[in-house]
Amino acid sequence: MSTTYAKGFTAAGIPIGLKSSGNADLALVVNTGPLQNAAAVFTSNRAKANPIIWSQQVIADGTVSAIVLNSGGANCFTGSEGFQTTHLMAEAVGEALGISAGDVLVCSTGLIGMQLDREKLLPGIAAAAAALSADGGPDAAAAIITTDTHPKTATRDGDGWKIGGMAKGAGMLAPGLATMLVVITTDADLTSEQLDEALRAATRISFDRLDSDGCMSTNDQVTLLASGASGVSPDIHAFTAELQALCMDLAFQLQQDAEGASHDIVIEVMSAATEEDAVEVGRAIARNNLFKAAVFGNDANWGRVLAAIGTTQAAFDPYDVDVLMNGVRVCTKGGPDRPREEVDLTPRQLLLQLELHAGNAGATILTNDLTHDYVHENSAYSS
Amino acid sequence: MSTTYAKGFTAAGIPIGLKSSGNADLALVVNTGPLQNAAAVFTSNRAKANPIIWSQQVIADGTVSAIVLNSGGANCFTGSEGFQTTHLMAEAVGEALGISAGDVLVCSTGLIGMQLDREKLLPGIAAAAAALSADGGPDAAAAIITTDTHPKTATRDGDGWKIGGMAKGAGMLAPGLATMLVVITTDADLTSEQLDEALRAATRISFDRLDSDGCMSTNDQVTLLASGASGVSPDIHAFTAELQALCMDLAFQLQQDAEGASHDIVIEVMSAATEEDAVEVGRAIARNNLFKAAVFGNDANWGRVLAAIGTTQAAFDPYDVDVLMNGVRVCTKGGPDRPREEVDLTPRQLLLQLELHAGNAGATILTNDLTHDYVHENSAYSS
Repeated sequence: MSTTYAKGFTAAGIPIGLKSSGNADLALVVNTGPLQNAAAVFTSNRAKANPIIWSQQVIADGTVSAIVLNSGGANCFTGSEGFQTTHLMAEAVGEALGISAGDVLVCSTGLIGMQLDREKLLPGIAAAAAALSADGGPDAAAAIITTDTHPKTATRDGDGWKIGGMAKGAGMLAPGLATMLVVITTDADLTSEQLDEALRAATRISFDRLDSDGCMSTNDQVTLLASGASGVSPDIHAFTAELQALCMDLAFQLQQDAEGASHDIVIEVMSAATEEDAVEVGRAIARNNLFKAAVFGNDANWGRVLAAIGTTQAAFDPYDVDVLMNGVRVCTKGGPDRPREEVDLTPRQLLLQLELHAGNAGATILTNDLTHDYVHENSAYSS
Repeated sequence: MSTTYAKGFTAAGIPIGLKSSGNADLALVVNTGPLQNAAAVFTSNRAKANPIIWSQQVIADGTVSAIVLNSGGANCFTGSEGFQTTHLMAEAVGEALGISAGDVLVCSTGLIGMQLDREKLLPGIAAAAAALSADGGPDAAAAIITTDTHPKTATRDGDGWKIGGMAKGAGMLAPGLATMLVVITTDADLTSEQLDEALRAATRISFDRLDSDGCMSTNDQVTLLASGASGVSPDIHAFTAELQALCMDLAFQLQQDAEGASHDIVIEVMSAATEEDAVEVGRAIARNNLFKAAVFGNDANWGRVLAAIGTTQAAFDPYDVDVLMNGVRVCTKGGPDRPREEVDLTPRQLLLQLELHAGNAGATILTNDLTHDYVHENSAYSS
């Protein structure tokens, strides 16, 4: 049920001709209240798309009535004409719903450097508003996908309240592969400040730890909307825990559908001096093309793991590191242990575990292998 | 003539069975004097191979009599047994030539985490010493290649003195693709301090600016040996200029033979606030898989260039950047200019020019595209 699982929301997803495929490409999610509290996190890329620039202003007061999302064009590096298009999208939503454009978030995804077609977009928004329904969540989830092979949705249940969400893309906030757009709705009664705190806590260990190809998008946005329609004010810790679980669920779905990937790699960095060190070490592996290509070739090339982490500033002794791949200890104290041929890399998931022996902190980073299909998808099609 | 172009050097390159192909895999270059001055630069990876750890000690006094190089195994993360092998290699060279093992540099390249076969290596070194000749440079150059399709050599002539060199790999010092090994010889009469200064100046703008796939090797080493056999003490600026030209020549050869590449991308970053900013911006592009895959697909996707540089800390306004691809101005002030279809990407070389409009500094970074063949070579074969 996606974004209409929680009470107090309507949604729609329809085709308006931005995608040449004719598939659905416009989504609208509306908070029918009674509350209209919201929080959002955005790409940390300095090169920000027009909808990011717009939405950062809208979220400033913590009040959001609706969010409109289009695939088929990123509206990034499109100059003042492009920003005006984003503004007109918010105005069109405001006009159709009788709300202020200043309470409408906008998200776009697709090719950078290309103007969106207003002739299709603005009437399309009116049509989407007319199609809004209390069970429109799945349609909205389908309308935001680009190279995804299927929509991603998740739900969680609290004590008298619910959370639901949809996601597209395969990436993270900083950095990300393609554009990641996530909309999460809840009927819990929480303030914008509480939502912001919970959302930052949840994204920090979910979407922020997903690093499929090291490329940060100009358009990433994760939004959390609260209607308060359940009438229940949950304990903030209980809410945050469910929100984290939902975000992890969506993050795994994004990883499993990453462009062209044939392996999902879970990098578990243990006994690090600090969590920051563990994240830096995990990311260095997640961005090493040589290691990722070896995994594609079912080669447990742990030497490339150590070569990758040697480039970091994290505290550890390269000659005191242990490496396990799918449970096989291939490296002990920076030297060869079990033969790497013992590692079975035929399953889609690879669990790569590192013991840094430098402290008690840890972190898990999610990535994918580097495959022929990744190169094909990103060379044969513009996005 | 490679490393035997300058007077005062002998060299050899022979097959000793480390490579399963049976191709030459052991090279030896000997400085016959009268001087034995030397300088070297090494990978900045903290994960250093045993030959790097050894050679950093040998070069400390600026005196080197010989350098031995093997392909067929990196001797990295091989523990104390591996370090002992490196030591025994230097001892074997010392014994064969009647010199001190402490004046023998060692380089290795190949798979990480695998012991070298001493039964082949040590007798092989004696055989290489017996094969030394004043025109053995090309043989040595052929013996150090791994996935290279051909040996790389270059020569330069000064006023009464010469420089010659050989290189393998396609990468850079920090970071590098596969392992880059370079040996340069000169018959100029220069001190170790002069050689060190000249070598650092030359590598800084040549090998250090080559970033084919962003992966730093554990074994990179660039060595400069001076015999003084010409009897000429050149002006240090004239020498440095010729050395830079020779290093650039070898760097371009490495780029043009990078694993699986179908395009050589020259990234020229202009009007940066500082040279460091220009290098950071250039590297961010050189490491962006999405842009590199687009180039492979002959797609002038300049949006991916701007998305890549937006992740840097360099001083510039993303909405004041111009981008030219093979002379076509596809982006002006962060917005679309000429249609990207006008860019002809069928030639192997792509000149990507960026105007940051932030100052008067600049830098050029060399990289390659991301291709099916890159993934294939790095997934199907262990290295």
